[in-house]
Amino acid sequence: MPIALIALDADDTLWHNETLFTITQESFRALLEPYLAGAWTGEELYTTELRNLEHYGYGIKAFVLSMIETAVEVTGGRVPGTVIRQIIDLGKAMLAAPVELLDHVAAVVPALADRAPLMLLTKGDLFDQESKLARSGLAEHFRHVEVVSDKTPATYQRLLAKYDLPPERFLMVGNSLRSDIIPPLTVGARAVYIPYAQTWAHEHVPEANRPAGIVELAHIGLLPAWLEGQG
Amino acid sequence: MPIALIALDADDTLWHNETLFTITQESFRALLEPYLAGAWTGEELYTTELRNLEHYGYGIKAFVLSMIETAVEVTGGRVPGTVIRQIIDLGKAMLAAPVELLDHVAAVVPALADRAPLMLLTKGDLFDQESKLARSGLAEHFRHVEVVSDKTPATYQRLLAKYDLPPERFLMVGNSLRSDIIPPLTVGARAVYIPYAQTWAHEHVPEANRPAGIVELAHIGLLPAWLEGQG
Repeated sequence: MPIALIALDADDTLWHNETLFTITQESFRALLEPYLAGAWTGEELYTTELRNLEHYGYGIKAFVLSMIETAVEVTGGRVPGTVIRQIIDLGKAMLAAPVELLDHVAAVVPALADRAPLMLLTKGDLFDQESKLARSGLAEHFRHVEVVSDKTPATYQRLLAKYDLPPERFLMVGNSLRSDIIPPLTVGARAVYIPYAQTWAHEHVPEANRPAGIVELAHIGLLPAWLEGQG
Repeated sequence: MPIALIALDADDTLWHNETLFTITQESFRALLEPYLAGAWTGEELYTTELRNLEHYGYGIKAFVLSMIETAVEVTGGRVPGTVIRQIIDLGKAMLAAPVELLDHVAAVVPALADRAPLMLLTKGDLFDQESKLARSGLAEHFRHVEVVSDKTPATYQRLLAKYDLPPERFLMVGNSLRSDIIPPLTVGARAVYIPYAQTWAHEHVPEANRPAGIVELAHIGLLPAWLEGQG
């Protein structure tokens, strides 16, 4: 059966995202350096982020709150208000950062939209993701936008029911094995894995835990030809 | 034509919300008092919130970031890290606060669901609103959940198109004239206004700007009888 709906992940599938977090983390570390007793690996920020996932979910606002909490913790409360303010400004700069499309995306998305209805399917902060889609110049090609709080097998099952689709007619495309690939395969849908150069530690899946037979493409420019091959 | 979809706002329509913000604001002010030169009206927090709407959108995480920014500002940077940490904890307490249903809601929502499909239609933070719906015990009665970044006439138009509904078959119920009542009326849909005891200043609409003929009920317990009267 032909694919009736193509769902695309957003961050690090359509546009660069993880690099923005990496750059911000470096600025954050530089801001704190004068208030630290010794060297700091940055590990505590990741620990705080994971601990806060259940309170905040994903997204930039959650990340900024975790940076602030970490700053207070690792400096033993010595971080001055002026530095807290600079951390807030780092967050605002992230939210306003230009949306940089990955290679091939600008040409491939319209081509895919000619073949099947497209859905943007992303985790994270609703406000931020809608803003990025608007700034990306791609919005007109997406018939559906779903911002979800997590991407579990239940999430995909709910979407299949909502759009009244048999699983094998739904294709998910994304850069996270943990969120974009394994859960749809679990519910019988299809998935194409397109790795990004950097993966957030939380999304990393060890080689040994990867199911066999995952379709992997080197970049999204190869997706139309792959779809052609599916008939 | 009978109503084919009943959309209900969440915060201060189904469960208490604004009171939680008011209580938190009082704690925030008490935390800062020792670091302020003189008396403080709290006005700056509201100013910061409005200024940050374009960066953060609505919701508790946005509110916490605005509290932190305000704390640094009004203390001239003197606020210590330990107090910043306490502000973060105020935010986490808000996110974990029990969902308290308004009077009549527990009985009325199932009754409404027997009459027409229900949609939860709310602004704010996706993660937070989904978590509140899950904790409210009402989730099973809602066929659709739409968390939107704003409630403008365009938002309602998009929803009518998405659910393929003529405007007059769509009913919106909520406590905000600005978000729940005036925009749906503008696009030809129907709306029932159920005021809450407290309204966030940003949502307030002066008496003079209220369109005539708005249907207003004193509480949601009166909604089933009103619907009965609509045939």
